[in-house]
Amino acid sequence: MSNVLEALVAALGPQVRLGADIPGRNHTDASGLQPVAPQALILPQSTEDVATALRICHEHGQSVVTQGGLTGLAGGAHPQSGEVALSLERMTGIEEIDPASATLTALAGTPLAIVQQAAEDAGFLCGIDLGARGSCTIGGNIATNAGGNQVLRYGMARRNTLGLEAVLADGTVVRSLNKMLKNNAGYDWTQLFIGSEGTLGVITRVVIGLHPKPQGVQTALCAVSSFDDALAVLRRFQQSYPGRLLVFEAMWREFMTVATQICGLSPAFEEDHDLTLLIEADMGEESTGSEAFSTLLSDFYEQGLIKDAVVAQSRADRNRFWAYRETPYEYGRFLPEEIRFDVSVPLDRMTEAVEYLRQEMPRQYPDSVWVVFGHVADSNIHINVAIKDMTSDTKKGVQNLVYGMVSRLGGSISAEHGIGRIKRPYLNRSRTEPELALMAKMKQTLDPKGILNPGRVL
Amino acid sequence: MSNVLEALVAALGPQVRLGADIPGRNHTDASGLQPVAPQALILPQSTEDVATALRICHEHGQSVVTQGGLTGLAGGAHPQSGEVALSLERMTGIEEIDPASATLTALAGTPLAIVQQAAEDAGFLCGIDLGARGSCTIGGNIATNAGGNQVLRYGMARRNTLGLEAVLADGTVVRSLNKMLKNNAGYDWTQLFIGSEGTLGVITRVVIGLHPKPQGVQTALCAVSSFDDALAVLRRFQQSYPGRLLVFEAMWREFMTVATQICGLSPAFEEDHDLTLLIEADMGEESTGSEAFSTLLSDFYEQGLIKDAVVAQSRADRNRFWAYRETPYEYGRFLPEEIRFDVSVPLDRMTEAVEYLRQEMPRQYPDSVWVVFGHVADSNIHINVAIKDMTSDTKKGVQNLVYGMVSRLGGSISAEHGIGRIKRPYLNRSRTEPELALMAKMKQTLDPKGILNPGRVL
Ligand SMILES: Cc1cc2nc3c(=O)[nH]c(=O)nc-3n(C[C@H](O)[C@H](O)[C@H](O)COP(=O)(O)OP(=O)(O)OC[C@H]3O[C@@H](n4cnc5c(N)ncnc54)[C@H](O)[C@@H]3O)c2cc1C
Ligand SMILES: Cc1cc2nc3c(=O)[nH]c(=O)nc-3n(C[C@H](O)[C@H](O)[C@H](O)COP(=O)(O)OP(=O)(O)OC[C@H]3O[C@@H](n4cnc5c(N)ncnc54)[C@H](O)[C@@H]3O)c2cc1C
Repeated sequence: MSNVLEALVAALGPQVRLGADIPGRNHTDASGLQPVAPQALILPQSTEDVATALRICHEHGQSVVTQGGLTGLAGGAHPQSGEVALSLERMTGIEEIDPASATLTALAGTPLAIVQQAAEDAGFLCGIDLGARGSCTIGGNIATNAGGNQVLRYGMARRNTLGLEAVLADGTVVRSLNKMLKNNAGYDWTQLFIGSEGTLGVITRVVIGLHPKPQGVQTALCAVSSFDDALAVLRRFQQSYPGRLLVFEAMWREFMTVATQICGLSPAFEEDHDLTLLIEADMGEESTGSEAFSTLLSDFYEQGLIKDAVVAQSRADRNRFWAYRETPYEYGRFLPEEIRFDVSVPLDRMTEAVEYLRQEMPRQYPDSVWVVFGHVADSNIHINVAIKDMTSDTKKGVQNLVYGMVSRLGGSISAEHGIGRIKRPYLNRSRTEPELALMAKMKQTLDPKGILNPGRVL
Repeated sequence: MSNVLEALVAALGPQVRLGADIPGRNHTDASGLQPVAPQALILPQSTEDVATALRICHEHGQSVVTQGGLTGLAGGAHPQSGEVALSLERMTGIEEIDPASATLTALAGTPLAIVQQAAEDAGFLCGIDLGARGSCTIGGNIATNAGGNQVLRYGMARRNTLGLEAVLADGTVVRSLNKMLKNNAGYDWTQLFIGSEGTLGVITRVVIGLHPKPQGVQTALCAVSSFDDALAVLRRFQQSYPGRLLVFEAMWREFMTVATQICGLSPAFEEDHDLTLLIEADMGEESTGSEAFSTLLSDFYEQGLIKDAVVAQSRADRNRFWAYRETPYEYGRFLPEEIRFDVSVPLDRMTEAVEYLRQEMPRQYPDSVWVVFGHVADSNIHINVAIKDMTSDTKKGVQNLVYGMVSRLGGSISAEHGIGRIKRPYLNRSRTEPELALMAKMKQTLDPKGILNPGRVL
């Protein structure tokens, strides 16, 4: 055993697992990278344990990869050979719900679904929500500044985070379990850790702000004939009912074609349309809310903004509408290997982006199946490209095509999933030299030996 | 002329003012500190000018104080002798309003009121608002992470900031004029500059996110008999109408007594009450909105939560209600010298805070006039203490009393106004050693020579 492993075992005993005692699940995350066994797996039970582990690794210059729920798509928590994995999986639990402050304090390894349930039981709503809710951890959500379907209303993880406890690379514990909406006492250092994907410190405890529950959620599918019309619907909806929109998802024509012709869903509308919107809004108390929602959509129809619409009358309808949006989870069953992009494009360049794909994809990759969809109110689109017998050259070509376009249009190569290992080579497509230099300075200051998640982000 | 001044004049010519050419307004801010003439005043007209000025000052180790609208209350922009003042007053102008993205791009010296008007003219609302709107600058608002009356709904300046351009201490320009709600491409370095009060860099350009305008704002004054009841009103309102509350201001008994008996306003209610709430909500379209608002308040009345209430029927009513809240702007005319505190207290400790003041203020300072009021939904209260012939010892005593209490209750010594020079000696009441060490590291990294706003914050 190497010195560092010996020191870890001496200090943390059975919290350190070696060799065959390391479960396969800790060899990989959801990025699709080839599984790699870490040198050791540490399963701390407290902040002090995390501090001890990092202090020892820091002394020995041992690199550490932090693991939350391992649902990340960018390879941030995926071990590299020789790394020690530090998993927060035993640091779970809601420590406090303070109804006066509308806050929830939890250990960072707590699964998001548990946090959501606890908030709900206390009469509140957790503003963070995403498909991986059953497995991802609240610490991982904050470390990746996760988004999701309701960012439009509740913001990214950053906006929902009021306080943090974090362990620095050298084992120092920094704590601000702030429950107050306003605190301008010096720099808000917690911002450093939000979205830094485990490269600047390990988050051990979090305080999140809770929201009032929506009163009566209305759901509709709407067909529009251009992105400009979709934007007009978005802005007019917000003007008529400020703050009520929860979900505003767009699915372009190609997406709906795959959903119906390949995944086998029945068409949403009689005719094909360029864009289908999935809209949800909290319109308040059921009877008046549903009427106001339908009236507004009728107005849009009469103004020619929407070409067709269906409003959910039941939970079954709602599930049926969401089924279109969730077909990408099923693509594995129907389509060849995919590359998935999670990019942002400024809204005034969105049409250009889609037009470019419509021109270039068939020209350069005639055999590809590709779709565009996403949380457009947040400028976030997902682009999935499936190509039979994809070579690594093809993959690179498609990446260059998409990231090149995003870069030209002033977009971001990662809207919500983060950079991790997978998008690291492309970071300079979204960031300039002075920005990258500033990021490198931050990393150097907080982790001078570079032991935390090396090779991720920067 | 010293070398550094010569170099500045050579590079920037008439943008550098010396001696009697420096207007008196640049000798001070709104903190009440004694005016001090800076060594020179630089009036850059572009980001490049700011970069040139900082590069020269950096080379010479010359300290620089950045000035926005000079409305700051913490002395951050107040010059110290020997400093060069850099004022953004000539860097004004809205550069773009992008209705598709609902964003506004402006030079940092643009007054907030101009930003608000431009947003309004484009059919949107600027989420940042505060009493100093006519003079304060959007750059200053972001540098101080300013709050205001509507933080409950729109958040602090941080939440409204999507992109920044900043000049680092050595003159490097960093730019991310991001217009997208989601951008997880590496560290969000812009967060560093928000709320750092000019100590880490000079903000030169900003992109803020705009909001839909409220539809129909309802206003009421409500009397409640305890802070617990006030909280119950807050939470039930939010449960019944999520996202509609804009303003939730509390004025404790002592505040209303000063408003009526000293400032001469007529009593709001027939009887005295422990707490008066000023509530505003966007209830949507006028007729139905006003009915829903009144009905909800009647329900609260019947539940015994509120003891009395008046709903504004006109703009004149609304102004009359706000007049109570705005009496502190008039205290100078009626009261002896004041110390003003801008603190946060976790909501579950608020009653304790007020009880403590009610016990200790009359005991320790029997001749004082003191009031508590503020944006309580955000945990932010203002405490004003007026004492005749205040000595500096009395002042220190009162500060220790208030900050000691805030510290014991886990609050913040600055909710929104920042630390600047004035609160710097008390920062350790709200922050622990590891937090202060981390802040110092951030400062050291970004401003290794300590030329930016020295002696402010840290
Ligand atoms: C089905 C599915 C749907 C998804 N939908 C969304 C979505 O809508 N929006 C979205 O943003 N993402 C989405 N994701 C991606 C992923 O779920 C999120 O990134 C999530 O926040 C990761 O949380 P985790 O606990 O699984 O983190 P992990 O995958 O374990 O780690 C992610 C990164 O954070 C770091 N990290 C984890 N925990 C900590 C900690 N305590 N301290 C410091 N660093 C830490 C890791 O080192 C790694 O770099 C989805 C993933 C799946 C599989
Ligand atoms: C009547 C009145 C009401 C107020 N109400 C509120 C309120 O409700 N909420 C609230 O939060 N504050 C309030 N304030 C305080 C003050 O208005 C805010 O702090 C405001 O944001 C300061 O903006 P400014 O442009 O005047 O900044 P200044 O006073 O010029 O500077 C403030 C600080 O920011 C730095 N700074 C300024 N511009 C820049 C820049 N471009 N780049 C880097 N650093 C910069 C300065 O160095 C200084 O440290 C009030 C003040 C007054 C007088």
